[in-house]
Amino acid sequence: MKNKFTGKKINGIYTDMALEARELHPDLPGIVEQKESIDGIEISRITIQDEASGQQIGKLPGQYITIDAPNLITRDPELFKKVSQQISKEVVALLTNISAESTVLVVGLGNRYVTPDSLGPRVIEKVYVTRHITNYLPKGTIDMALKSVCALAPGVLGVTGIETYDIVEGLVANLKPDAVILIDSLASRRAARINTSIQITDTGISPGSGVGNTRADLSQKGLGVPTIAIGVPMVVFASTIAQDTIHLIANKTGLHSDEEKLVQLAQEVISESMGEFIVTPKDIDSIINDMAQIIAEGINFALHGENTETLGEILS
Amino acid sequence: MKNKFTGKKINGIYTDMALEARELHPDLPGIVEQKESIDGIEISRITIQDEASGQQIGKLPGQYITIDAPNLITRDPELFKKVSQQISKEVVALLTNISAESTVLVVGLGNRYVTPDSLGPRVIEKVYVTRHITNYLPKGTIDMALKSVCALAPGVLGVTGIETYDIVEGLVANLKPDAVILIDSLASRRAARINTSIQITDTGISPGSGVGNTRADLSQKGLGVPTIAIGVPMVVFASTIAQDTIHLIANKTGLHSDEEKLVQLAQEVISESMGEFIVTPKDIDSIINDMAQIIAEGINFALHGENTETLGEILS
Amino acid sequence: MKNKFTGKKINGIYTDMALEARELHPDLPGIVEQKESIDGIEISRITIQDEASGQQIGKLPGQYITIDAPNLITRDPELFKKVSQQISKEVVALLTNISAESTVLVVGLGNRYVTPDSLGPRVIEKVYVTRHITNYLPKGTIDMALKSVCALAPGVLGVTGIETYDIVEGLVANLKPDAVILIDSLASRRAARINTSIQITDTGISPGSGVGNTRADLSQKGLGVPTIAIGVPMVVFASTIAQDTIHLIANKTGLHSDEEKLVQLAQEVISESMGEFIVTPKDIDSIINDMAQIIAEGINFALHGENTETLGEILS
Amino acid sequence: MKNKFTGKKINGIYTDMALEARELHPDLPGIVEQKESIDGIEISRITIQDEASGQQIGKLPGQYITIDAPNLITRDPELFKKVSQQISKEVVALLTNISAESTVLVVGLGNRYVTPDSLGPRVIEKVYVTRHITNYLPKGTIDMALKSVCALAPGVLGVTGIETYDIVEGLVANLKPDAVILIDSLASRRAARINTSIQITDTGISPGSGVGNTRADLSQKGLGVPTIAIGVPMVVFASTIAQDTIHLIANKTGLHSDEEKLVQLAQEVISESMGEFIVTPKDIDSIINDMAQIIAEGINFALHGENTETLGEILS
Repeated sequence: MKNKFTGKKINGIYTDMALEARELHPDLPGIVEQKESIDGIEISRITIQDEASGQQIGKLPGQYITIDAPNLITRDPELFKKVSQQISKEVVALLTNISAESTVLVVGLGNRYVTPDSLGPRVIEKVYVTRHITNYLPKGTIDMALKSVCALAPGVLGVTGIETYDIVEGLVANLKPDAVILIDSLASRRAARINTSIQITDTGISPGSGVGNTRADLSQKGLGVPTIAIGVPMVVFASTIAQDTIHLIANKTGLHSDEEKLVQLAQEVISESMGEFIVTPKDIDSIINDMAQIIAEGINFALHGENTETLGEILS
Repeated sequence: MKNKFTGKKINGIYTDMALEARELHPDLPGIVEQKESIDGIEISRITIQDEASGQQIGKLPGQYITIDAPNLITRDPELFKKVSQQISKEVVALLTNISAESTVLVVGLGNRYVTPDSLGPRVIEKVYVTRHITNYLPKGTIDMALKSVCALAPGVLGVTGIETYDIVEGLVANLKPDAVILIDSLASRRAARINTSIQITDTGISPGSGVGNTRADLSQKGLGVPTIAIGVPMVVFASTIAQDTIHLIANKTGLHSDEEKLVQLAQEVISESMGEFIVTPKDIDSIINDMAQIIAEGINFALHGENTETLGEILS
Repeated sequence: MKNKFTGKKINGIYTDMALEARELHPDLPGIVEQKESIDGIEISRITIQDEASGQQIGKLPGQYITIDAPNLITRDPELFKKVSQQISKEVVALLTNISAESTVLVVGLGNRYVTPDSLGPRVIEKVYVTRHITNYLPKGTIDMALKSVCALAPGVLGVTGIETYDIVEGLVANLKPDAVILIDSLASRRAARINTSIQITDTGISPGSGVGNTRADLSQKGLGVPTIAIGVPMVVFASTIAQDTIHLIANKTGLHSDEEKLVQLAQEVISESMGEFIVTPKDIDSIINDMAQIIAEGINFALHGENTETLGEILS
Repeated sequence: MKNKFTGKKINGIYTDMALEARELHPDLPGIVEQKESIDGIEISRITIQDEASGQQIGKLPGQYITIDAPNLITRDPELFKKVSQQISKEVVALLTNISAESTVLVVGLGNRYVTPDSLGPRVIEKVYVTRHITNYLPKGTIDMALKSVCALAPGVLGVTGIETYDIVEGLVANLKPDAVILIDSLASRRAARINTSIQITDTGISPGSGVGNTRADLSQKGLGVPTIAIGVPMVVFASTIAQDTIHLIANKTGLHSDEEKLVQLAQEVISESMGEFIVTPKDIDSIINDMAQIIAEGINFALHGENTETLGEILS
C-alpha cells in the first residue's frame, strides 16, 4: 500500500518504459520509432499516434524520448554533464509554450523514505526554485529576468491518504502555472537499465496506465496545462528476472515450443513468493543521488538558461 | 528567506503565544483568561472576544488554550501520556462539528530539514492516516468505523516557492474535509517554555499576524472549514534573552526609571549582531521527537478514539 | 568497494547462512542438526564439530542457531515479542561466562547509509548503553546492579579505509570486555527468508569465510574473548533468483539430467549482467527498522534482565 | 550526558578558543600573538610557550592558529575556496613529519545526530579516504602516488559508553599512522564567530581542558604521534549572551564600578534557567554543511595535493 510500483503487465512482464513495451511488440501499427546516437548517448524517439495504438502497449498517445547512456555506471563527470544537457534540450523542445515570464511547477512523485522510490523528492531538493523571489521580493532585488519556478514533493497515497492528483490539481488551480514537469521512479524489465536510461514524455503520468479515468491523470487532459514527465528506471521486479531466465533457456536449448508452458509453470511459484521483491543495484543509495543531480541540472538549465550558474550561487 | 520565524514584535519582544502576549498587557479589555490546574498540568484558557481586542496583542479573536507542563523536561512517560490525553480532550472540544464519518486534514507546517522548525512534518509522520483505507479499499476490509484522516507536510515558501495557503486551500477545495488541524513550531519569549508548553487555538494560523489579508489566512475564514492550530515553542530569539537580562537588572538595581533608555541602548547592538540567532535547548534534536510523539498521540486519540491502538498495530 | 556482500559461493550459490549451506549438502559428516518448534517459531541448531567439517560448507566450527518466523511479515507485535525473547534466551545460553558485573561490547557491522547493509548500525542505536553510567557516574547514582554495556558502529572498509578488525581489536585491548556481540546483515539464497530468519552463532564473523587468516577474524580466536554474532538475511543476489528458476524448471519438466548444462548456460549471462544486483523487499526501509528493534530488545533483555524496562525509561 | 559542551569557564565565560581566552587576559606572560591579514581573511597565531602559561587560560602549550572570515556568512564560493586553501596551508605547515608514503588518520569527533555537534562526522563523510586502495588493491590499480588516508567518526561517550580516547588509541596502536587530524565543534563566546572562525592547533584536544590526566588526551602525548585539531565555533551558551549584555550596559551607563555586582545578580537567574540552552544561527543545518565542505577540502588538498581533483572523481 505504501508503494506505487503496481502497474499493469504485458505478457506477464511489467514495465513503465514505452521503449521496452515496444520491444515486446516491435511491429504494432500507429507506433513509430526513430533512433539517434550522439556522443556515446543513444536516443530513441517513439511516437504513439493515437489512443487505439497506445492501448496495445498500455501507454497514452504522445512522444516518448529515451536517453540511454550505459556508461553512466562509470560515474564519469563529463558524461553526467552531457546527459544533463541532452535532458535540458528535450525538455525545452517539449515545452513549446514557455516564455521568459512563465511559471513552471515541478512535482517530485514518490516516497522520500523508500530509497528506490525517492528520485522525485530528491530532484525537487536540487531544482532552483525562484517563484518566491519573482512573486514576493520587490522588483529589482535580483538583476535577472527569471522564470517563476516552484516545486513540490506531494508524497504518496499510502502515507498521506491523498491521491497525488488532488494535491497537484488544487495547486495548478491556484497557481495557474504555464507547464508542469513531473519526476518519477520507473520499473523496467532490464536490470541493466537501472540508472542508465531516462524517459521523457509529453503524456504526463497516468496512474491507471492509460485506461479509463482521464480526470485523475497527471496530464494535460487532467490538469489543463502542458504536462511532461521525466522518469528513470530504479527497480526491476524479481519475477521479471525469473522470466528472463526462462526465455534465455528456451532460446539456448531449442525448447522454444514449450516456452509458454514453462512460463506458466514458473509463474505459479513466482507469483506466490516473489510478488513483493524487487531487484536493485547494491549501491542504490548513492546512484539515485547522482541521477537526481543529473536530472535537476537538466531541468535547471532548461528553465533558467544562462542564469543557472548565478542562481546556483545565490540559492544553494 | 528559508525561515518563517519572522513575526511582529510587541514592545520589542517577539512571541507567537497568546499567553505571553497577554502577560505583557494583563489588563486589556475584551481579553479574558481562566486558569486551571489538573494533575501537574497548568491550563490557561484565553478568549479574545473580538477583532479590536485581538489587534491590541496581534492575535485573531477566538480561543487560545495553553497547556503548561514544565516537568516534561524529566521525560516521564506517565506525564507524556497525561499531556497527550489533555491535547486529545481539547481537540475534541474545539472540533464540535466532527462525526464518526468525517474527513479531517492534518497539515504539518515548517521545514523538515531545519530542526527547530521540523515539529509539524514530524507529527505528520506519526499521525494515523486512514483516508486511503476508507476511500479506496473495498468496504469491510477493515472491521472498524473509521474517520477519514489524511495528512500533508507542504514545506515552506523559501524551499517550494509556494505559499502554504495555496497548497492547503487547493487541497481543501478537492477533498472537502470537515476540519483542518495545523501543527507548527512557535517562537516564545521564555526559554523555559521550549518543549513544555502547547498552545491550541480555534483561530488557525495567520502568517500576517492577524492584520489584513484574511484570504491567505490558514483559518476558517480563509479555508471555509473549521481550522484549529496546535503549536509548541521551539525557539526564543537571542535578542529576547538580552532584553530579559536588562529587565532583570533594572528590577534588581532599582534603575527602573532608566529601563527604557537601557533597552534602547542594548537594542542597537542586539539588532546588529543577534537578529539571526536563536536560543534552543542543546538536545533539541531529541526533544522535538518526544513532542512530536505527544502531539501525534493526542491527535490520533482525538480522531480515532478506541480504534487508536488497533490502528497503531495495523499502520505502523 | 563500498559493499561487503562479496563472500564465497557454494555450487554457484552464495549464502551467509549455515542452515542453507547445509541444505545444499544435507549428509556431510561432522555437521549435526537438531530442529525444534516453539509457538510458531522454527528453531534449527546446527553444530559444526571441527574445522575440517566446516570447510566443506565454508563455515567455522561452532554452533549456529537459526530462528525462523515466516509470520514476521504480518508485523504482529506479539510475534515480535516472542522472537525477541527467543533471541534473548539464545544469547544468554551462548554467553556462559557473563556475570552481573561484566562488560559487554556490542558492535554493529555494516554501512548506515546503504539500506540493506544498515541493520548493525540501527541495532546499535537501540541497545541500552550503560558503561558511561557504571564507569563514570558516582556510585549510587543509579539504584540498580548494572552490567557495563557499550556499543559501536565502526563503519565499513570502503568508507573508512580501515578494516573492522583493527577498530574492534584495538577497542577490546583497551576496554577488556568479557564478551563481544556482533550484529550484521547477511545474504541468503531464499528471498522468503529476508527479515524472517535470525542466525545466532558463537563463531563470530570471518570476513574470509573460514579460510586462512584467523588473526583478522572477528572471533574468540581473533579477539581473545567470547564473540557471538547475530545476523539477519537482508539480500539475495539476483543471480540466485535466476538459478532457483532453473532448478524449478528442471524439476517440473523432467529435464533433470540437463540441469548442469542449463546452469552453465545461464551462468554466463547472469554473471555479466547481474553481478551487482540484489533482490530486496520493496519496503526494506521499514522492515529493517522492525528487525533492528526485535534484535535490540533481545540483546537488551539478555544483558539487563529485569532492569530493562527501567533503563528504557531512563535512557530513551 | 549526550553533549560534550561542558568545559571549564574563565571569569564565568565559557570558550574553547585560545583567541578568546587570550582576549579576556591580553597581557599574560608566556603567551605570544601574531596577526596577519590575507585577502579578506584575518589570521591570528598564538603561541603558548609552556604548561604554566597555558594553565592561566586553561589551554595546553603549543600553537593556535585562528582563521577569521566574517564574510563567510555571504556564502561566496570564492571565499569558501580561499579559506579551504588557507586551512590546507596551515595543516601542511603543522604536519612537518608527513611524506608521500605516510598514513594519516582523520577523526571526526561529536554526535552526528545533534546538529551543532555534527561537524566532525560530516567532515569525515567528505574526506577522501584512500587507505583501502593503497593497502588492499593490487599495486598499479591506481596510477598515482597516494598517501594512505583513513577516517573514523567514533561517536560520543553518552551514546557509545566508550571514551573517544579508548577508540582512537586502540586504532593508532593497530594502524600506526604518522599523524592524526581531529575535527570538532567548539563553543565560543561570540555568536558572530559561529561558522566564520576556524581554529587549528598542534595541541590536539584535551577533554579535561589541559589539566591533569594526560594519558586520556587526544594529543601527541596521549597518542604517541603528532596530533592536530581543527575546530569551528558552532554554539554560544545562552548565559554568555546574558553576560555580554551586562558588560554592554555597564560600559554604556558608566555603572562600571557595579559591574561585578550586576554579574553576580544575573548569574543566579541565568544559572538556573539557561544552563541547558545554547545560541545558534537559525540556519545551522545548512551552514554546518558548508563548513564541513570547506574543512574537508582543506584537508583533502593538504593530504592529496595535485591528486585531489582526480581522487574526487574516482571516489565520489
